[in-house]
Amino acid sequence: MKHAEMNRRMLLKRRPHGLATEQDVPLVQQALPEPADGQVLLRNRFLSIDPAIRDWMSDRPSYLPPIALGEVVRSTTIGEVVVSRHPAFQSGDLALGLNGWEDYSLADGAALLRVEPQEGDAEQHYLSIFGAVGLTAYFGLLEVGLPKPGETVLISAAAGAVGSLVGQIARIKGCRAVGIAGGKEKCRWLVEALGFDAAIDYKACDNLVEAIREACPRGVDIYFDNVGGEILDAALMTINHRARIVFCGAIASYNSEVPVPGPYNMWQLLARSARLEGFLIRDYFGRFPEGIAQMRQWLQSGQLRFREQIVDGLENSLDTFNRLFDGSHSGKLLVRL
Amino acid sequence: MKHAEMNRRMLLKRRPHGLATEQDVPLVQQALPEPADGQVLLRNRFLSIDPAIRDWMSDRPSYLPPIALGEVVRSTTIGEVVVSRHPAFQSGDLALGLNGWEDYSLADGAALLRVEPQEGDAEQHYLSIFGAVGLTAYFGLLEVGLPKPGETVLISAAAGAVGSLVGQIARIKGCRAVGIAGGKEKCRWLVEALGFDAAIDYKACDNLVEAIREACPRGVDIYFDNVGGEILDAALMTINHRARIVFCGAIASYNSEVPVPGPYNMWQLLARSARLEGFLIRDYFGRFPEGIAQMRQWLQSGQLRFREQIVDGLENSLDTFNRLFDGSHSGKLLVRL
Repeated sequence: MKHAEMNRRMLLKRRPHGLATEQDVPLVQQALPEPADGQVLLRNRFLSIDPAIRDWMSDRPSYLPPIALGEVVRSTTIGEVVVSRHPAFQSGDLALGLNGWEDYSLADGAALLRVEPQEGDAEQHYLSIFGAVGLTAYFGLLEVGLPKPGETVLISAAAGAVGSLVGQIARIKGCRAVGIAGGKEKCRWLVEALGFDAAIDYKACDNLVEAIREACPRGVDIYFDNVGGEILDAALMTINHRARIVFCGAIASYNSEVPVPGPYNMWQLLARSARLEGFLIRDYFGRFPEGIAQMRQWLQSGQLRFREQIVDGLENSLDTFNRLFDGSHSGKLLVRL
Repeated sequence: MKHAEMNRRMLLKRRPHGLATEQDVPLVQQALPEPADGQVLLRNRFLSIDPAIRDWMSDRPSYLPPIALGEVVRSTTIGEVVVSRHPAFQSGDLALGLNGWEDYSLADGAALLRVEPQEGDAEQHYLSIFGAVGLTAYFGLLEVGLPKPGETVLISAAAGAVGSLVGQIARIKGCRAVGIAGGKEKCRWLVEALGFDAAIDYKACDNLVEAIREACPRGVDIYFDNVGGEILDAALMTINHRARIVFCGAIASYNSEVPVPGPYNMWQLLARSARLEGFLIRDYFGRFPEGIAQMRQWLQSGQLRFREQIVDGLENSLDTFNRLFDGSHSGKLLVRL
């Protein structure tokens, strides 16, 4: 074997309070494991930096079990097969899976997805626009939001990786797209670069409900929610009859120490005969090829614009991760190894 | 005119704190109004006693405007036309509308629904099983809940007017019906008289989540929620993938003085790709004939059993109303004048 004999790994040593620190998630060196029968050893090339990882670091119940203490931080990665003991993979293949923040990942071959970039694809796109991020925007908006031409789509965390795509897909589908983001620069980017119809800087507005009403004069038919908390409560006050809320994440609560209640204005779902529906991309794995083909076509035709922020070095993964929560990034965050 | 010249009315004098009192809702005598052009004067025969009325007494925002101070308490009633200045009604007709707790109601003819009982119908059934109560159970379960044979339907306030029907319709549709109610007697009635598969006495159980899991060994596919609050939070912990929550009311919060948050376990909607959808019967007015015909057929064939509690006398309407909130009734409450 040509690979190094040690593996650098970011382990969850203790559960963070608030933002995760180096004491919670230290970088350690461990011996490189040998694949057993059916397993594959991957050299990771890109790590995905996602808000949900913070949720998995806590021991609150969630849609996946918590990361066990002493285990590597769970993350989707894309890597090159260096040793394969699974018949579907050969050394040199590219593969994607739910692995971890580490140089090398040992994975069951059955849990990996082979990645075969087409001409013009960047391989990291399979962690972003052709991966969970892009396909969450695609299937979440189209299958749960059910947009109709002329409707208004409101998006929180609109300058984020998912949100920025949701707004552009909404425009492609003939909807009015209105984003909520923090800061003048992000809002300008949404409108000028991505073609959103309007953007609301929640940090600069006194009354978010009024600001949404002004930006959505015909009310909100679809609210694509990545945030929860006060922004969800404000959005609820502006929804139309039979509105659909795509409940895709609740980043506002992921660093909280105490149980976070649902929205105070939930009664609006009753008043508007509206629906709030959870969306998890894993329900759509079987339809990834269809989603990727459409996203690729929109990307190549210039109808979709997408921003990746790539940071080099495993040792920077924690700092990069914490940028998700301070609003200082826009677009999809990736760590390149 | 043969009718009396005075009208007894229950007016909202001030907004209640907690349960409404006689000081909040006094009985007064006022002169009988004369119908203007297009209006109808009804002598009310039955008043509907519903939890939502408590919500309208507060000045919290809701799906209808609050009852104005000094106005009659808003309620659906059924009455006999005594004077008509609307071409669609004649003296002696029976009509139904959103009127008030009073001997006589003045109504726009356009806002009234003519009631023509068929042989075997009791006229008060149009305020119960053939009215908002019965059709909320019917359309709420079938159109929002979307039950499939073999699924499990959990119902809160299951011994209430709506809940008791939801469980029976669920059984007719081939589902397992599990009710939550307060007290051994109500639970026995649900299982022995109405054919529910199981009933949970929430007052007698230490751990509601465990009790639901025991009564619903295959999990909960549909939760029909009339209650909100802690029972909704417990139910959320037991839902299956792609579950549907029919959000039909939130009686737990109607007497609250402070804003009530949504459920703490709302994250389960994300974890289960589940849906919570508000249901208002007014969206289905146009389909009432279809719903009434089906409910009548099930009632006549003995597949549906239904309990009405009829209390005589306008002066008893407030006490009867307050029984909605202390759990001392089962079935549909009506006041007969």
